[in-house]
Amino acid sequence: MITGKNHIGNKQSAKGNTTYKTFNPQLNLENEAVFTEATTEEIHEAVDLASEAFKTFRTISGEKKAAFLNAIADEILALNDELIQMYCSESGLPEGRAKGERGRTIGQLRMFANLVSDGSWLEATIDTAEPEREPMPKSDIRKLLVPLGPVVVFGASNFPLAYSTAGGDTAAALAAGCPVIVKSHPMHSGTGELVASAIIKAAKKTGMPNGVFSNLNSSGVEVGEQLVKHSAVKAVGFTGSIKGGRALYNMAAQREEPIPVFAEMGSVNPVIILPKALKNRNASLAKTYASSITLGTGQFCTNPGLILGIDSRHLVSFIRNLSEEILKIEPSCMLHPNINEAYENNKQKAFAQSNLNVSGSFVNKVKPNYAKQTVTTVDGSSFLENSALHQEVFGPYSIVVRCKDAEELEQIISKLEGQLTGTIIADDTEASQYPEVISALQNRVGRIIYNGVPTGVEVCASMTHGGPYPASTDSRFTAVGIHSIKRWVRPFSYQDWPNELLPAELKNENPLGISRLVNNKQTTDTL
Amino acid sequence: MITGKNHIGNKQSAKGNTTYKTFNPQLNLENEAVFTEATTEEIHEAVDLASEAFKTFRTISGEKKAAFLNAIADEILALNDELIQMYCSESGLPEGRAKGERGRTIGQLRMFANLVSDGSWLEATIDTAEPEREPMPKSDIRKLLVPLGPVVVFGASNFPLAYSTAGGDTAAALAAGCPVIVKSHPMHSGTGELVASAIIKAAKKTGMPNGVFSNLNSSGVEVGEQLVKHSAVKAVGFTGSIKGGRALYNMAAQREEPIPVFAEMGSVNPVIILPKALKNRNASLAKTYASSITLGTGQFCTNPGLILGIDSRHLVSFIRNLSEEILKIEPSCMLHPNINEAYENNKQKAFAQSNLNVSGSFVNKVKPNYAKQTVTTVDGSSFLENSALHQEVFGPYSIVVRCKDAEELEQIISKLEGQLTGTIIADDTEASQYPEVISALQNRVGRIIYNGVPTGVEVCASMTHGGPYPASTDSRFTAVGIHSIKRWVRPFSYQDWPNELLPAELKNENPLGISRLVNNKQTTDTL
Repeated sequence: MITGKNHIGNKQSAKGNTTYKTFNPQLNLENEAVFTEATTEEIHEAVDLASEAFKTFRTISGEKKAAFLNAIADEILALNDELIQMYCSESGLPEGRAKGERGRTIGQLRMFANLVSDGSWLEATIDTAEPEREPMPKSDIRKLLVPLGPVVVFGASNFPLAYSTAGGDTAAALAAGCPVIVKSHPMHSGTGELVASAIIKAAKKTGMPNGVFSNLNSSGVEVGEQLVKHSAVKAVGFTGSIKGGRALYNMAAQREEPIPVFAEMGSVNPVIILPKALKNRNASLAKTYASSITLGTGQFCTNPGLILGIDSRHLVSFIRNLSEEILKIEPSCMLHPNINEAYENNKQKAFAQSNLNVSGSFVNKVKPNYAKQTVTTVDGSSFLENSALHQEVFGPYSIVVRCKDAEELEQIISKLEGQLTGTIIADDTEASQYPEVISALQNRVGRIIYNGVPTGVEVCASMTHGGPYPASTDSRFTAVGIHSIKRWVRPFSYQDWPNELLPAELKNENPLGISRLVNNKQTTDTL
Repeated sequence: MITGKNHIGNKQSAKGNTTYKTFNPQLNLENEAVFTEATTEEIHEAVDLASEAFKTFRTISGEKKAAFLNAIADEILALNDELIQMYCSESGLPEGRAKGERGRTIGQLRMFANLVSDGSWLEATIDTAEPEREPMPKSDIRKLLVPLGPVVVFGASNFPLAYSTAGGDTAAALAAGCPVIVKSHPMHSGTGELVASAIIKAAKKTGMPNGVFSNLNSSGVEVGEQLVKHSAVKAVGFTGSIKGGRALYNMAAQREEPIPVFAEMGSVNPVIILPKALKNRNASLAKTYASSITLGTGQFCTNPGLILGIDSRHLVSFIRNLSEEILKIEPSCMLHPNINEAYENNKQKAFAQSNLNVSGSFVNKVKPNYAKQTVTTVDGSSFLENSALHQEVFGPYSIVVRCKDAEELEQIISKLEGQLTGTIIADDTEASQYPEVISALQNRVGRIIYNGVPTGVEVCASMTHGGPYPASTDSRFTAVGIHSIKRWVRPFSYQDWPNELLPAELKNENPLGISRLVNNKQTTDTL
């Protein structure tokens, strides 16, 4: 049962007068529930509670945090069909996707539970004292990672579960020991409220401090702005548009105390098809890429929005094949009328650029909010000169660039903005013949793929989801996988600290039995 | 022989018309050498060379980078007395300090050489493929750390060697695989030129690409500003004042592509003396702290500028003892007349604050540029209300705050800006009686010290030198120790990449024999 209220720690609250509803894009009508936007008072209440909660939460044992994270997973599963139906009604996405994304969300929560139950992720590092050292005695110094403080999370429109309320950012921040305040996404506030209620239930069941989690409704930008500017907020996670992410980054950088913002933003995910592959696998590549471009109505941040090849009759036939294949695919629903409208506008902007040809675009009438998939093409030099063509068209769209030679290809790649991914499609050993192209691509992306598609982000330790700006605002971190926890922690050292006052991870007797770097050697030994 | 020219990669250049000299504060007169400030053309030349050098330097083997770093250390040692004399003439610091700092600089270079010669610092992480996985096959994904690109380093006034031209930031960035452009510190450009020539010699001897290092002279802010705003510069390291560091941070954040700035800035390094310690070790603590406050003429970033105690007759007698002890110490020379002038001005500003008492201040005539060490005192509530008293007075100065009780003490600590260090002075088990005080202190600092002094930063893996803003602009990193290399790298993933094209660290056969996280287990095994 959706109340439309905010979760301010353990209590529900709706003091404001601004209300809004979510929208069902499949039915093309508003959903019933009415959400009340958080007031300034409620924002302060949530942040104050989070600061207070941080005092205890920051030192809670890994075991207890793990129990909390696992309980969140359990409570989300217990929401059962209510959650799946709400998800579908607020996103237009099919039930299979909803269940898959719930699985991913649960998986991430349990992955972080598993990580923090073992203290080895804290990078415990010990250098023992040398009281006799000349000319100065050496102190005993011990280091580990500590949480930054309250974190504000902005959920993604395109991942109502896995990158929203209890998604990757929230799971990583809670695992790190940071209380979380979620600025609920206005397109799926019902899904958000259900998940928030699960988190609060889990927090109560596992004895977490009140304020460890809050969920604030908002249809505009003001709630988010107030949160990011609040002096007690210490970091921000965001998944969404470049415009939105950059605005938050700027706000955070202009604070009296600047705070880190990890924003995972736009990407066109360039795909380079090398000549032999283009010749030998033309039809099958067209099929594979038509499917990748339209997957999830093209609403993945790893959608292949830019395909590059060296001009030849094989490239021309690939463009024809890709255009045919993409038109065979049944159009599907976008997340929201606004997103569909932006998609159509961005396409029209692209169409207006000189020398751009539309090689395939769905023209038949579609249901409201359904996207018409499109493939366009342009020559390399026009693309190189016109940065408007480098911009992401969020949706089932891709532009194929016909480069005149490998040099122009390399030049284009070097000029691209930062990207989440880059893909090389090559046959046999031909990749080794293009070292400059591959080197240039590596320098612009966070993840490089060989003979695959960029869509599909595996949640695992070796994943980098992030990249040079504007793929993300800080390429030094990944948004996916266990190492994404490092966004929310800082190193902290104890010098000559009494053993009995040290955290368990740093005590002489190594009670947790974790691996530590002791005098530059990795060991599980006691001291 | 000082030329006063810039090092633009392997060549020396002086195209500009703006010149300046450094100053010998001991002799109170200008040094002879004339330095020519870099022009816009020279700045672009240095950055373009660095970008070009990055193309090869980023993939150079760890072994070769180690040889380069060790060669820098050798060439610095080969500068011999010329370097030591230049250092002293440009800093007013004694020869012993010069030699000590040279040792630290050499040590840091060799430490990073040692680190990168073993590829384990790259955090190689591998998840192998599961082609049969349902519903989707799992790709093979492999991750390691890669360098960000050209880094600009701003040296510190107070560490002409260890945190300047070939100091911690430069050594870490080169070790990471990032070319470095140093904006030479105008107070010690001669020392900078000598060290730069050593780096260039080492680069040539070990076959590094031209442009891997440049050194640009500058007496004002324009050269630095142009460097930070240059689109090909990818990160910035800075050690210095809050004003300077924040200005660079703002510039970098406002770029079209924002870049990370790691600025290590001001800190007053609060010291809390608990009641029993104050009672039992009053005189010896006063002696120890008088020495720590005046060490290096109070020009260390870890100088104890703020001492806090709970009011009692023991605290009153400590203030008297400290004031007496500090006056026994012979005044010493500051780095530059400007720094001495700022010190005197900042002291006068502090003296003008209400309820502040000067309890000990050197009054006799001193030589030009010599600092008059000073201890002041104020009550807790005046300190709490007046943030002007929280500001660093860079030099041999400390303020003792008389808190009315433990609660006020905790309140004051919670209100402090971020700090590099915090110190607890306690007897027996009394520290355990102040959990809130210690918890509040931990939350404001990067390093916490027990029964010691904050001055003296050990270069070791367990060191955190950094902390919440404004101690540094990004508390998620340390500026000292091997882990400071992480400021200049980003994670990068290969998906289904052919084994023969992978870097050695990620190849199946593990040719470097390094420890890797393979399918979530740390191992040196081959695949």
